[in-house]
Amino acid sequence: MTTILDVARVSGLSTATISRALRNPEKVAAETRERVLKAVREVDYRPNMLARNLRTDRSFTVLVLVPGITNPFFASVTAGIEATAWRRGYSVLIGDTCDSREREAHYAQLVETRLADGVIQLSPDYVPDDQRRPLPCPVVHACGCELTAAPSVRIDNAGAARELVEHLLARGHRRIGVISGSRENPHAIDRMKGYHQAMQAAGLGLDEALIQYGDFSMESGARAARALAALPDRPTALFSMNDEMAIGALQALSQAGLSVPGDMAISGFDDIKFAAHTIPPLTTVAQPGTEMGAKACEILLDRIEGKNQDNEVHILPHRLILRDSTGGYPPP
Amino acid sequence: MTTILDVARVSGLSTATISRALRNPEKVAAETRERVLKAVREVDYRPNMLARNLRTDRSFTVLVLVPGITNPFFASVTAGIEATAWRRGYSVLIGDTCDSREREAHYAQLVETRLADGVIQLSPDYVPDDQRRPLPCPVVHACGCELTAAPSVRIDNAGAARELVEHLLARGHRRIGVISGSRENPHAIDRMKGYHQAMQAAGLGLDEALIQYGDFSMESGARAARALAALPDRPTALFSMNDEMAIGALQALSQAGLSVPGDMAISGFDDIKFAAHTIPPLTTVAQPGTEMGAKACEILLDRIEGKNQDNEVHILPHRLILRDSTGGYPPP
Repeated sequence: MTTILDVARVSGLSTATISRALRNPEKVAAETRERVLKAVREVDYRPNMLARNLRTDRSFTVLVLVPGITNPFFASVTAGIEATAWRRGYSVLIGDTCDSREREAHYAQLVETRLADGVIQLSPDYVPDDQRRPLPCPVVHACGCELTAAPSVRIDNAGAARELVEHLLARGHRRIGVISGSRENPHAIDRMKGYHQAMQAAGLGLDEALIQYGDFSMESGARAARALAALPDRPTALFSMNDEMAIGALQALSQAGLSVPGDMAISGFDDIKFAAHTIPPLTTVAQPGTEMGAKACEILLDRIEGKNQDNEVHILPHRLILRDSTGGYPPP
Repeated sequence: MTTILDVARVSGLSTATISRALRNPEKVAAETRERVLKAVREVDYRPNMLARNLRTDRSFTVLVLVPGITNPFFASVTAGIEATAWRRGYSVLIGDTCDSREREAHYAQLVETRLADGVIQLSPDYVPDDQRRPLPCPVVHACGCELTAAPSVRIDNAGAARELVEHLLARGHRRIGVISGSRENPHAIDRMKGYHQAMQAAGLGLDEALIQYGDFSMESGARAARALAALPDRPTALFSMNDEMAIGALQALSQAGLSVPGDMAISGFDDIKFAAHTIPPLTTVAQPGTEMGAKACEILLDRIEGKNQDNEVHILPHRLILRDSTGGYPPP
């Protein structure tokens, strides 16, 4: 069997350099990497990382728990995690929990059996710690809410929602409908808080008839928009708690013969890549998904490697993106 | 240190049953699973799968090479792979190659160092075998083209494109523009073949001015649509080679004051979940993404486990989805 010594002999490089080039190619010069790979091929060397893993009791793998990989926002967070892990020599296991507690518990076994060194959770955590079995490894939340424990990364969901609603108020809207996520969803709870704050600050009462609950899908957004458009005293603007529901609503309003923003303005949340390409383009809040994933991954790997036991809540900046669906920014 | 014998003692179950419940929970009754998990928690048992991996020289992991995880079509293929792997007791490593050969080569090291037992490739393979270092493990292609080697899963891309163009011809269109992927992309090559076949069968010549090349992004679809709409003798219908470029085109045509399908019909390809929610809804070809991923994963795991050395090209059925963007099916 060939060993790393054969690679060293053929390449003329030290075993330390060869290990580094194989474990973490980003850390060596391209020319060195090429020499190593050439020698590896020549002697047909296949380092057994399974042995390394057992020896170090580490898998050099992080587990990402994602509520649904086909959601474009979670896909961009995952892309940020993946790029960071790659750069630091780790692999990424994906666990699509399909929003199911049972599947989440199953994936937790990967950690309990040492097949992952840490976990990045994309679902906002709202299970009190004493009701959940603690995992025997570091856990970082990448898309937290106000209730999420540290270490975590999130945006100021309530603040972002408040700014969006303030924008609608500044455009002259007074009856502002809401397409919410489910009542229990922690992101929906935070964003509803922002809506309430903005409405109250404007001296407007809360009208329960203006609130429809969906499940963040396009279909549920369409249903909610139809219900709100059918009200005798219908709203002139809609605040949707994600872009997908807003996209469903745009089509439903168009099919109902209502123009956007003329008859009804509408805003989304997340700034998924489709939001810039709707008809009309969608006003929304940009969450820095890739950066949120990258930051959460850095924190996790630092904890795994014992470098920096960051235990903070990191609130990354969001941005209000004004597009035609709300008629752009307030006129002078 | 607690061992599996402690779990057996507390639960009253055999070690074989306990192993099965931990390795592959889907294969045991829910009640048995609960008994195992209760005992595992009681004695705080953490089986060391790293030792199992070294003993068996297996990682029980498959590597998925995806050209871009934020593409909703690849996300649905990945979801199908993930669900199948989960059911059969395997984990899924995601390698987002960002369409880069260098990153793809880096991920191949995971296999060469035994951290994955097999590979599912989502990029259509167009590198001749003699120019690529063969991987020391089974490889299955989940989104193949006509050039892709077996074992692979794909749809009949040329046939599907031909059917779409025949649908446009049946609606009376004669000048049919194309929004293609890049000239070298194997899916674009197969789909262009179908376009040529349908046009030639209708006795229509090929007009190079009607073909614009994009890169499958919404921005490139918008650019292509603007160029085609600006032609002196502009096409009355557009065949876009994926849904995202068609979505970009819809907005560009709307901004140019053209109505769809009145002034210009347009069709997409893939049937991503957004295609049903555009304005107007998009005619397209449904690729069974989840099934393609699931099938590729079954073939791979069978090969890894030495069960069935399937070496076929599996062509899964596609479906033409007629929606308002082409005015539906030909009138009587």
